[in-house]
Amino acid sequence: MVDHRVSPPTTLRLKPREDRRLRAGHLWVYSNEIDTTATPLSAFAPGDLCRLEDARGKSLGLAYVHPKNLLCARLLSSRSDRPVDTDWFIRRLRSALALRDRLYPEPYYRLVHGEGDGLPGVVVDRYGDVLVVQVGTVGMERLKSEIVDALTVVLQPRGIWLRNDGVAREAEGLPLYVEAAGDPPPEVELLESGVRFGTALDSGQKTGWFYDQRDNRDRFMRYVPGQRVLDVFCYAGGWGVRAAVGGASQVAAIDSSEPALAAVRANAQTNGVVVETMQGDALERLKRLHAEGLEFDVVVVDPPALVKRRKDFDAGFGHYAALNRAAMQLLPADGILVSCSCSFHLDEAQLQRVLLRESRGLGRRLQLLETLAQGADHPVHPAMPETRYLKGFIAHVSDG
Amino acid sequence: MVDHRVSPPTTLRLKPREDRRLRAGHLWVYSNEIDTTATPLSAFAPGDLCRLEDARGKSLGLAYVHPKNLLCARLLSSRSDRPVDTDWFIRRLRSALALRDRLYPEPYYRLVHGEGDGLPGVVVDRYGDVLVVQVGTVGMERLKSEIVDALTVVLQPRGIWLRNDGVAREAEGLPLYVEAAGDPPPEVELLESGVRFGTALDSGQKTGWFYDQRDNRDRFMRYVPGQRVLDVFCYAGGWGVRAAVGGASQVAAIDSSEPALAAVRANAQTNGVVVETMQGDALERLKRLHAEGLEFDVVVVDPPALVKRRKDFDAGFGHYAALNRAAMQLLPADGILVSCSCSFHLDEAQLQRVLLRESRGLGRRLQLLETLAQGADHPVHPAMPETRYLKGFIAHVSDG
Repeated sequence: MVDHRVSPPTTLRLKPREDRRLRAGHLWVYSNEIDTTATPLSAFAPGDLCRLEDARGKSLGLAYVHPKNLLCARLLSSRSDRPVDTDWFIRRLRSALALRDRLYPEPYYRLVHGEGDGLPGVVVDRYGDVLVVQVGTVGMERLKSEIVDALTVVLQPRGIWLRNDGVAREAEGLPLYVEAAGDPPPEVELLESGVRFGTALDSGQKTGWFYDQRDNRDRFMRYVPGQRVLDVFCYAGGWGVRAAVGGASQVAAIDSSEPALAAVRANAQTNGVVVETMQGDALERLKRLHAEGLEFDVVVVDPPALVKRRKDFDAGFGHYAALNRAAMQLLPADGILVSCSCSFHLDEAQLQRVLLRESRGLGRRLQLLETLAQGADHPVHPAMPETRYLKGFIAHVSDG
Repeated sequence: MVDHRVSPPTTLRLKPREDRRLRAGHLWVYSNEIDTTATPLSAFAPGDLCRLEDARGKSLGLAYVHPKNLLCARLLSSRSDRPVDTDWFIRRLRSALALRDRLYPEPYYRLVHGEGDGLPGVVVDRYGDVLVVQVGTVGMERLKSEIVDALTVVLQPRGIWLRNDGVAREAEGLPLYVEAAGDPPPEVELLESGVRFGTALDSGQKTGWFYDQRDNRDRFMRYVPGQRVLDVFCYAGGWGVRAAVGGASQVAAIDSSEPALAAVRANAQTNGVVVETMQGDALERLKRLHAEGLEFDVVVVDPPALVKRRKDFDAGFGHYAALNRAAMQLLPADGILVSCSCSFHLDEAQLQRVLLRESRGLGRRLQLLETLAQGADHPVHPAMPETRYLKGFIAHVSDG
């Protein structure tokens, strides 16, 4: 393995005109954009750093390479004369931290949102003095010790969980594992706008908490006082427990995972509220509730990504449609639907189309009140649509 | 003039397949979609009601007609067997009111957002017991007394201002005028999230207040404590005065209108804060502040529609670009830009492109933190992109 700190990086050259997207700010390079005659990708090992240059030899910056992937390089820095070392990570992390300090009064948030924070392939969530890191690429895996060292310098955490068990790593040829640096506890308590949630960091979903919906849940609170609320795909109860604390008259939550529902009940108890939990397939449960004649004034549909790959689009689209239709059937003459999608391949306009079609099919009137997106601690890189993935609507569903 | 209450409506028939957009929920009909052989538009006077039907004679509902306009009819109701009378308006208004009661603790909001509330061509803003109505079409102008009667039944207002002085009325062949029903005061005080604002209803911009930005201003508050804030196109100080109340260390506001700036100073005083006002062309003022070496941590650029018609796109796009560039130049190494556009013809992706391009041109790094849209009291009709007009971003602008 090449030591990035001492070896000058090898050069990777783009074909003519293939620098345009990068000059507009994008950070990704595809293998068909490389002048492989001048700079063969086969000269690189996975994760090697390179000096990226345009067809005329002008530097575009420093990137890391995956020679076997279509997405064969990600730009780390527009400067190729400075090393990507612990100090470099410290600077990026300090900038990310300064932004979060502006956004949230308490230290519970996504600290690093990959490309959106200029750190391609790395996600860091913060739970006070415990951090959870996800490394998604070989390039960053080889810089893991620098990342951990930099996090230690900037935040002096009690411990760091490396949740490197996401299946996306397999496409990079990386092993799946969970490991600890320092002494992180397996479970932590976090604060979300004053509400306390416990979550498991070593075994929970993804990095342990869906911080991306936090700002949306803040906006959701105006709709819940005095209302019967149903939280579908509830995980540990982010929407449901907050609704109960926010004055909902009744809250129920559906998830297929019994451990998630146990977490919902525990989180409800911690906050002195009650949330009824229902285990099962979300769509079947929704249909059964409708068959039983039950109604909810506010229904939240916040599923995991149902369109993971582009080729799954039709099936996923149909699944979103069926879920939202079933949710609308539980709403009374004057109800609120919160419908989200974190599928990158289903865009906001498509989600809107799902909701419109299903509401028309049921003879209901739909008004879109609020458009939701990932929280401010998940910054979107304006040149990279790939960094924007979460979308949703708060809609009014009424009769006539 | 036909009395809608007694005459059965004449029929307007669509050509084959021209009913599809309407069946998907849209409310507008274009003259080239009409089967003018079967049902000549020339048989209608401006504002006549009609029974709209598809090419097979199946009813699509009740619409009002403008025989000389490309947009020749707007659907009011999917039922053609019930009259559009005061009771019909009462039902629509009660539904609109019930929604606002869910959204806002105090009676200051847009009560009717035209098509988004199923009332094409009518806008109603509420200031406690005073209402401001804007009628934009001949069809609704002819129903004006029903509208006023229905508002009186539903809300028992002290008075109603009819601000029928928008130039868009000229395209409908309507006169421009301002008139009062009941005894509305010329000026009122409104509450926006606890902050008091006075505004002139008989002579202020549009309907007196930009309620469409209220929810966005709520979201803006997290960025202002301890910051130097600049409010560009400030009107009566919605952003600036709220920033001062929210703990900004210093607030300045720019507008070309001296009466608007006088309102800013008065509103600041009412709330016990100070906002410095600067009169002049926004772009020139921004450039001068930069030339003087001044900096602001947070700059809000919320101009009037700079792309009013599609053919103004290039000039308007350039104006947005120049304004946002000049605003970014006032931001320090780590600043916040709030940039909005209420131009229907400049969509969110285009505004994003403006911001990206100008930030790149200045060598600044841009992160999009929040995506803004019109407030929840301006519901979007999901089948009508025309009802969605306000877009914006809260962006982090930093160095390197």
